[in-house]
Amino acid sequence: MKPIQNDRFLKALRREPVDRTPIWIMRQAGRYLPEYRALREQAGHFMNLCKTPELACEATLQPIRRFDLDAAILFSDILTIPDAMGLGLGFTQGEGPKFSKTVRSMADIKGLKKIEANEDLAYVIDAVRLIKQELNGKVPLIGFSGSPWTLATYMIEGGSSKEFNLAKSMLYQSPEILHALLEQLSKAVADYLQAQIEAGVDAVMIFDTWGGILSPEAYRQFSLNYMQKILSHIKLKHKNIPVILFSKGCFHSIREMADSGADALGVDWMTSVGKARELVGNKVALQGNMDPAVLYADPEKIKAEAIRIKQEFGNYPGHIFNLGHGIHPDMNPEHVACLIEAVHG
Amino acid sequence: MKPIQNDRFLKALRREPVDRTPIWIMRQAGRYLPEYRALREQAGHFMNLCKTPELACEATLQPIRRFDLDAAILFSDILTIPDAMGLGLGFTQGEGPKFSKTVRSMADIKGLKKIEANEDLAYVIDAVRLIKQELNGKVPLIGFSGSPWTLATYMIEGGSSKEFNLAKSMLYQSPEILHALLEQLSKAVADYLQAQIEAGVDAVMIFDTWGGILSPEAYRQFSLNYMQKILSHIKLKHKNIPVILFSKGCFHSIREMADSGADALGVDWMTSVGKARELVGNKVALQGNMDPAVLYADPEKIKAEAIRIKQEFGNYPGHIFNLGHGIHPDMNPEHVACLIEAVHG
Repeated sequence: MKPIQNDRFLKALRREPVDRTPIWIMRQAGRYLPEYRALREQAGHFMNLCKTPELACEATLQPIRRFDLDAAILFSDILTIPDAMGLGLGFTQGEGPKFSKTVRSMADIKGLKKIEANEDLAYVIDAVRLIKQELNGKVPLIGFSGSPWTLATYMIEGGSSKEFNLAKSMLYQSPEILHALLEQLSKAVADYLQAQIEAGVDAVMIFDTWGGILSPEAYRQFSLNYMQKILSHIKLKHKNIPVILFSKGCFHSIREMADSGADALGVDWMTSVGKARELVGNKVALQGNMDPAVLYADPEKIKAEAIRIKQEFGNYPGHIFNLGHGIHPDMNPEHVACLIEAVHG
Repeated sequence: MKPIQNDRFLKALRREPVDRTPIWIMRQAGRYLPEYRALREQAGHFMNLCKTPELACEATLQPIRRFDLDAAILFSDILTIPDAMGLGLGFTQGEGPKFSKTVRSMADIKGLKKIEANEDLAYVIDAVRLIKQELNGKVPLIGFSGSPWTLATYMIEGGSSKEFNLAKSMLYQSPEILHALLEQLSKAVADYLQAQIEAGVDAVMIFDTWGGILSPEAYRQFSLNYMQKILSHIKLKHKNIPVILFSKGCFHSIREMADSGADALGVDWMTSVGKARELVGNKVALQGNMDPAVLYADPEKIKAEAIRIKQEFGNYPGHIFNLGHGIHPDMNPEHVACLIEAVHG
């Protein structure tokens, strides 16, 4: 396999100097791209896109062909693990993911399939191999997984939720059941990320989309704690593979996250990236953090905001530019090109 | 009118010592109470409840009769101002508030009715007078309004929103339009709160429910800035009426909020109340911050969490116990009684 040609992203993750700030965009392979919408239509069901390595590879590569991005991210869904555990993932129009089974008792947890990524999620691992081959060293490839807590919320609620009443009710009423579920998920996530690494991804990211609905104490006990276990597991075998943690809305625990062993932290736009830098010092790289809504503005305003964020981060190594959340599906792709140019400029 | 008999809430707002920590609960008059559901059915449309002073008074008093609460809060909706400005507020089953008109241009702003609370929102002011009379000094009465930014989001989007794309798009693309709207709303909110004060409320609270979707910079410029104007206006005429600011998800700017002239800050459960106390020192009282989901747990666990929060706040004057957000509609009222007992105990 060819060595990585554009290694700015990996250098920034190691907090080494780079010639220009690297950028990639959460959900860069997604509905805002007409070529993605065409592919999605061709695939029929959304999960066909994820479960067919050739299609997942194509979705991953589309934004890399169109834009001067510094990293590719595996196209997949965060709910592949619960699906493989037997919950039966489906997507309903406009309502998002729905599981046919839920997990609300010790018996439900015992009923979950013990999975091995190389077998039960072979379609993801095959996609990684194919993407690496097709990228041919152009940019690094990021692998990913949902965090145990974030996966658990979907498994308990049976899908998306607004208030997470069932998951939080379990947390306060029957924490032992939640811990048992998180323990099992942590093992599965660690194995999943390790399989992605062994298939060729150059870095991995853990998305803790729902860490921010917890109190600081509950976040540390029920989310960060389990991500730390995963980190230790990965670092034992693959200490040179950078790991990015992204707990949205958890600025309250940024110091604890920086001490977790992660190489970089994702930063949402409700956090000042300058303040974050101040709090974590030189322990970790930071990835973020423009409000995705800035991309609705005209090119000059996008450019001004990109420059403001770079200045706020300051002239240190270890900044990877990104949005503070996934790009919106109604975004104009030309505004993305303009952002990338502003960040690189 | 009788003087206030239970003045713990007002003393705590002034950071004076109290014999026991006062408590009230956001949305204490609400769907979790069977007597409220009966009243709601009797009223027909939800807005009838708000627009009929006798019914609004009854809803306000229900939780005061049932529980040993230390304050009552005016029963009303946060969208009364945009409704009076001519947007036509309605509620659709399961979808929340919907306006028949929206505000998306300077022309739309010019089309808004210039309102005076004593005339255009007389039903609220009448309700305040009636409630004060019926309370007969038992506990203090809190008046309230939505913040200009929070009201603006509903007016721009036309109702509730998930991503607030239109409001944030205006913020980044046409900030001058948003500023004009916020300016007009600030005047209306200041006048509205002043009218409530003159009709008898003992304290007022500004709910900035959606401040937390903004970056720290945008929050200060588009939300806190306008709340500060309202505060200055109120304090000019009524400097002894305590004002509580509650910007959910805005812990990043807690010091700036403490410098705003507010007497107390609402604290959500994603913030450590001990850490908040440390950052604001003795400048303001703090109100909060139990995760509403804790009330799903059994009485012992509720009690333990209430005690933990009190201990975390520490042995200082100036703590008003509350949830970090409104109580959920499916909550067991007995659990609320148990929380109040634990806080008072």
